[in-house]
Amino acid sequence: MEIKPYERLVNYYETDKMGIVHHSNYIRYFEEARLDFMERVGCGVVEMEQSGVIIPNVDAYARYRRVTRFGDRLTVTVRPAEFTGARMRFEYEIISGGKLCCDGYTTHCFVNGAMKPIILKHTHPELFKKLSRIFEECNHMRLQK
Amino acid sequence: MEIKPYERLVNYYETDKMGIVHHSNYIRYFEEARLDFMERVGCGVVEMEQSGVIIPNVDAYARYRRVTRFGDRLTVTVRPAEFTGARMRFEYEIISGGKLCCDGYTTHCFVNGAMKPIILKHTHPELFKKLSRIFEECNHMRLQK
Amino acid sequence: MEIKPYERLVNYYETDKMGIVHHSNYIRYFEEARLDFMERVGCGVVEMEQSGVIIPNVDAYARYRRVTRFGDRLTVTVRPAEFTGARMRFEYEIISGGKLCCDGYTTHCFVNGAMKPIILKHTHPELFKKLSRIFEECNHMRLQK
Amino acid sequence: MEIKPYERLVNYYETDKMGIVHHSNYIRYFEEARLDFMERVGCGVVEMEQSGVIIPNVDAYARYRRVTRFGDRLTVTVRPAEFTGARMRFEYEIISGGKLCCDGYTTHCFVNGAMKPIILKHTHPELFKKLSRIFEECNHMRLQK
Repeated sequence: MEIKPYERLVNYYETDKMGIVHHSNYIRYFEEARLDFMERVGCGVVEMEQSGVIIPNVDAYARYRRVTRFGDRLTVTVRPAEFTGARMRFEYEIISGGKLCCDGYTTHCFVNGAMKPIILKHTHPELFKKLSRIFEECNHMRLQK
Repeated sequence: MEIKPYERLVNYYETDKMGIVHHSNYIRYFEEARLDFMERVGCGVVEMEQSGVIIPNVDAYARYRRVTRFGDRLTVTVRPAEFTGARMRFEYEIISGGKLCCDGYTTHCFVNGAMKPIILKHTHPELFKKLSRIFEECNHMRLQK
Repeated sequence: MEIKPYERLVNYYETDKMGIVHHSNYIRYFEEARLDFMERVGCGVVEMEQSGVIIPNVDAYARYRRVTRFGDRLTVTVRPAEFTGARMRFEYEIISGGKLCCDGYTTHCFVNGAMKPIILKHTHPELFKKLSRIFEECNHMRLQK
Repeated sequence: MEIKPYERLVNYYETDKMGIVHHSNYIRYFEEARLDFMERVGCGVVEMEQSGVIIPNVDAYARYRRVTRFGDRLTVTVRPAEFTGARMRFEYEIISGGKLCCDGYTTHCFVNGAMKPIILKHTHPELFKKLSRIFEECNHMRLQK
């Protein structure tokens, strides 16, 4: 499963008075890329939410390696790193001009519309299988490289 | 009915690469001040939403008169300008350092949870009366000045 | 001069608790589309700022006609409406699913790095001619339709 | 040195379609509280930037423990955790309704206006001493508790 990296330009309103992208925005770029990835592998978040699965963040980490600026073209690579059934973790790399600008990860859990944790394997077994397969394949691919 | 103006400091992440507050944020300051006003006059938006009244924007206008910068203290005055039962309009002035920096207005309508328009007078007569009184009093006060 | 409309998807973080795009974001979409337009007609804002021309907003207006939601594909059309040498005005339409969701306008002035107004015709005559031609051609095209 | 925790209400536009504060905003709350802290201890960021010291983020981490919602009052405690002369680290706790909602940390470096690293001890010895003292006192206080 080869997924096209997510691309986007830096917007003017994402810069701050240092003249660079404000660091909080990278957390948003991670999200954009992750939701694009989920859509491409057939687990679009709109459908998941409609089926009663909400996926809030448990944590988020970003390491800023190089500044990016208005107009820069960013390529965000998402790697599904770990899926336990109760949680999933994604890793990210943001490249611009061939250089690593930011990397990080986010961890997510699964809750219902009332924000109560759910066990996917029991409540949504089909989704559980699908996610298991996606995470397995992506990590298998990675090990083979 | 004398309502305390809304005060807040400009945040760093609200500036852009020009070194000034990005113009989109003033629309957010208007909202902060309006929701604070609504809370103070006993029409808090959380309670209104719980009672099935959602109040989306119909339009928004901002005129930028002076730049504001990180750390500036802003005073936002809200004036409830017009209430027709189907719509309401608020006017705003943002002052910093004694000078007018931005003014504008927003218009709002009333919809239910399914985003369908409602006639407050019929669906929520108590709220209709309350809003009518608030808008009347504020405009009366203004005319007397 | 036929300029490709600007396209983008609605991001998750642009929604609010009503489940729709927060109204302040449309002001940002206008900016994205305007800066994309400026780039395409050879007046990229990075180059303009490097040459000492900063273009802050004088005002901004948005009228919200239909809600948009996470994942919606937006097409933003920019029309350069008026250029006086001291100011320029752009008009916008945001379409999603074939329907008009938001329209509005922004007005801009020209200042130097110290945020003092400049007369483009005197300080940057080449840029003045270029912008005059762009606004003329776009409006001519429009009248012929 | 006892520094008053930073307080603020959750804004409407900070919520997302889950009905809760979007996770990226906590990174911004950390910044608000950190810059407020820096101001209170006499190291305001405006003055530091004017003296040629820019303080970008090296990394940022947030762990989300409880959701927060529109109107919630947040208390953000900042702890200056480590200062090496080349870097500084702050830790944060966000409390609402007496419960821990989010904690995390950020690391920062020191650069000049051209975004090149500087050695504070050499370039700004007074600031170096001041920051050393602040971090020492805060950590001393903490160990005594």
